[in-house]
Amino acid sequence: MILLEETLAEIVPQDAESREKAKEHLEQLTMPHWALGRLMDLAVDLAGMTRSLRPSVERKMIVTMAGDHGVAAEGVSKFPQEVTPQMVCNFVNGGAGINALARQARADIVVVDMGVAADLSELAHAGKIFFRSIGPGTHNMAVEPAMTRAQAIRCLEAGIQVARELTFSADVFGTGDMGIANTTPSSAIVAVLSGLPVAAVTGRGTGIGGNQLKHKIAVIERAIQINRPNRNDALDVLATVGGFEIGGIAGLILGAAALKKPVVVDGFISTAGALIAHAIAPASADYMISAHRSKERGHRAALKILNKKPLIDLDLRLGEGTGAALAMNFVEAAARILTEVATFEEAMVSGASS
Amino acid sequence: MILLEETLAEIVPQDAESREKAKEHLEQLTMPHWALGRLMDLAVDLAGMTRSLRPSVERKMIVTMAGDHGVAAEGVSKFPQEVTPQMVCNFVNGGAGINALARQARADIVVVDMGVAADLSELAHAGKIFFRSIGPGTHNMAVEPAMTRAQAIRCLEAGIQVARELTFSADVFGTGDMGIANTTPSSAIVAVLSGLPVAAVTGRGTGIGGNQLKHKIAVIERAIQINRPNRNDALDVLATVGGFEIGGIAGLILGAAALKKPVVVDGFISTAGALIAHAIAPASADYMISAHRSKERGHRAALKILNKKPLIDLDLRLGEGTGAALAMNFVEAAARILTEVATFEEAMVSGASS
Repeated sequence: MILLEETLAEIVPQDAESREKAKEHLEQLTMPHWALGRLMDLAVDLAGMTRSLRPSVERKMIVTMAGDHGVAAEGVSKFPQEVTPQMVCNFVNGGAGINALARQARADIVVVDMGVAADLSELAHAGKIFFRSIGPGTHNMAVEPAMTRAQAIRCLEAGIQVARELTFSADVFGTGDMGIANTTPSSAIVAVLSGLPVAAVTGRGTGIGGNQLKHKIAVIERAIQINRPNRNDALDVLATVGGFEIGGIAGLILGAAALKKPVVVDGFISTAGALIAHAIAPASADYMISAHRSKERGHRAALKILNKKPLIDLDLRLGEGTGAALAMNFVEAAARILTEVATFEEAMVSGASS
Repeated sequence: MILLEETLAEIVPQDAESREKAKEHLEQLTMPHWALGRLMDLAVDLAGMTRSLRPSVERKMIVTMAGDHGVAAEGVSKFPQEVTPQMVCNFVNGGAGINALARQARADIVVVDMGVAADLSELAHAGKIFFRSIGPGTHNMAVEPAMTRAQAIRCLEAGIQVARELTFSADVFGTGDMGIANTTPSSAIVAVLSGLPVAAVTGRGTGIGGNQLKHKIAVIERAIQINRPNRNDALDVLATVGGFEIGGIAGLILGAAALKKPVVVDGFISTAGALIAHAIAPASADYMISAHRSKERGHRAALKILNKKPLIDLDLRLGEGTGAALAMNFVEAAARILTEVATFEEAMVSGASS
């Protein structure tokens, strides 16, 4: 708990003065006023996060957190649980969607075992993944709490530690997830923290049909009924209806915010993690960049709580950090606008009439 | 006219068989069905355009066409006409928005003088720009036709030639524009080809106020009234209310389509050029990728005619090819999804239940 408390004490809002200076500079660039729109808003954010008019975003790091979910036993996903470790191997071998998109964005990927229900110690010993497993999957939240409160804290602290270790080789973080059935706890978190009905924030995940969706909604409703998560206590929400990788993502975000580094939040599962981080430390939202608008139903409600508008809207629903990787291009573009574009004076270009 | 006719004869639709094969392959990838959404649609398009399941998109080339407009004399822009050559110098010196964003996307930039109202021969002789000038700016379309029909054809053929020359070093093209006042002819083109009222497709360009916008609309209405462009004859539309750089963009698109190479169409001005290309050769639209949704008012109507949905929506309104450069990242991502992601069989990952 000491690491968590230390970290929370270090999370402060973006720097207003750096934001103002960035804005003044951007208004002098050789283009009509604010003609690069939201990329310029993002550039102001980067300055406010990093306290610099030359924010470093060169070294991009996607952290893909993997974990399993006891609630998979309820038949809420189209895929069997064994796919979680299989996909971890796919990540390590470079064959997954996130690998292709991270290569495109020139981002590194670190895969973290936060609690996969399979023995990945060989990969861990070979240095191919980070091993921070809290246990072999959560308990079935439709029957009992997904994890203990102590485990929830350990998830967060593991994520914080990962951020602290990677900060020496990363200027900007991106979040990612892998865990069969993890849209189920994510919807539960969003339902509890938004106060919306479960049906309004629960979607088709990997592509389940209408009947299975109804069943999934019923399972989440049961989990909330049995566990009675306290919506004013994010640790309780994470413990009762969360997941190990979701807690890891929340911790990574808290860690990045404490380090004053931008963290690109992927899609629905990552945003559920971001909600936990935000509930624990509201100022952490100042360091979040929402990557993309997920096809998953509850994402909009989650973004509304965070007051975030995604950069990308391409009907993605894969997770893994794929949206975060794509959005890294925009983060880099925003930083380049701030640092590489000439002002009217520098380029001797005539200004606008007022 | 021979080059134009030859080129038009070479423009055929995307290849249906390559599209089908790409789709089959994408459905086997280790992810839920079509979980990368519109990037996968784009991957199918790339296969259909290039007739290949391994489409090359490594060498990216932004072609920024510059030209001046006689109608600038009517006071339709916030900036003086001298800014056009000043910005060409800014491009050459690497200090403009397009330079920063092209560097981010690892794209090359070629600047083409299609008809700037200044002597750029020094830059041309130094090999820093392509010189294809049709004249020192168009005539004032509010008074007379912007150019002759012969000049309109020369614009198109210049664009086609640029595509033919650059094809040896470009796998994918991107369009860009520079020309003070060029939202005015672009709105005129969209109004004529869509049949919509001028006021419905005319926006604030570089950021003019309400009164100047009313004046701009009146100027465009007058230009259409005086020149009576024939909406069933795109060459007549280009000649009467178009621009040299807009014609060059149209030609570049026709050239790319004939070469079976993707062309990423930037924002409003580029889309006006795309409308001309589409009206002359409807199948050329099969090779167009719409980069971004411009803030400029008439863009939506233009995209509707082309039946295109932009990849990016970030309130950009700069032109130069900036949206095209950003979107190149998505083109590359789509190609990588097609070529780098493992199938369920290859990665030994369990499939979904049906």
